[in-house]
Amino acid sequence: MAADSAAVSASGQEDTRTRLLTTALRLFTEHGVEGTSLQMIADALGVTKAAVYYHFKTKDEITGAVAEPGLRELDSLVEDASRLRGRNARVDHLLRGFVDIVVRHRTLMALFSRDPGVTRALTTSWTTRGSFSGTMLEILTGPEGEMNQAIAAHAAIAGIAMTGGARQFADLDDETLRAHLLDVGRRLLGRPRRR
Amino acid sequence: MAADSAAVSASGQEDTRTRLLTTALRLFTEHGVEGTSLQMIADALGVTKAAVYYHFKTKDEITGAVAEPGLRELDSLVEDASRLRGRNARVDHLLRGFVDIVVRHRTLMALFSRDPGVTRALTTSWTTRGSFSGTMLEILTGPEGEMNQAIAAHAAIAGIAMTGGARQFADLDDETLRAHLLDVGRRLLGRPRRR
Repeated sequence: MAADSAAVSASGQEDTRTRLLTTALRLFTEHGVEGTSLQMIADALGVTKAAVYYHFKTKDEITGAVAEPGLRELDSLVEDASRLRGRNARVDHLLRGFVDIVVRHRTLMALFSRDPGVTRALTTSWTTRGSFSGTMLEILTGPEGEMNQAIAAHAAIAGIAMTGGARQFADLDDETLRAHLLDVGRRLLGRPRRR
Repeated sequence: MAADSAAVSASGQEDTRTRLLTTALRLFTEHGVEGTSLQMIADALGVTKAAVYYHFKTKDEITGAVAEPGLRELDSLVEDASRLRGRNARVDHLLRGFVDIVVRHRTLMALFSRDPGVTRALTTSWTTRGSFSGTMLEILTGPEGEMNQAIAAHAAIAGIAMTGGARQFADLDDETLRAHLLDVGRRLLGRPRRR
């Protein structure tokens, strides 16, 4: 019985944490990170500020946690791609996976590319997280590391991320956005276009 | 005589303003916008804080003024391009000019793409300045406004700007960087590559 109620309470807390992050992302999108207070998050959830503090001590921690799932997906994508044999297979896997992640997290990408508060909060995560973005660029650039490929790879990553989060494409459905962003990457990296 | 000394003093002040902006850009690059105080700018210039206040009331004003020349160049570029006849001529002129501006202001681009403080300070300038970036995208997208061209245009602008300011290409000489960034834009916009 005691174990049961502990399990219920743990999953209840897990649930609060998830709802907290969803609510935070919505408020960040509406008011910007700097314009959102812990109190506003608590009010929107209908809980006390102490309940928010139970999960996160600072707004930067919340911002980091909001971005965490996307960053973790990027980590495994890069790991998976590194294991493939053949440069084209690695590039194609990475490109498709990156576009998928950008589209799946487009609200977050939008926030990321527009809101100064997110950039600051994430600087730590990105820096402490090893250099998956370095590995990503290495895979896309290829073993010879030619400058024009390195620059095309950087432009592809930046272009896809910023465009995936751009306001003017917010109404596009996921599938259409995904197809167009993939096309951007393929043009830049010299990979065959979709039929 | 009075007119002469007024002219000397006006040009002396113009000179201080220019030196102030150069110094501010250097300090912003070293310490970030948020890590740079008006006092630090005054110290680096060897003037009093009051002398800095004479030119600018806030750090945001300084940040805006640091970015102003680049923004003004973008304005005239878009105006010039709009006047050309023929879509290809407009696209080529705009692309070449945009790459030129990004490379000429690469220190500023680096700051822009990395520093949260710049983004915030510039939000006002970009918004009040009409929509030259809207016109730029319109020209690059073309009259039919096809979605794949619109997305390619957005990715080209974002990719060129972010890559031009990227740390890992900071050692490339201007001419090489310019050629590669032009290549990025031409691949994305389907324009002939350089020979």
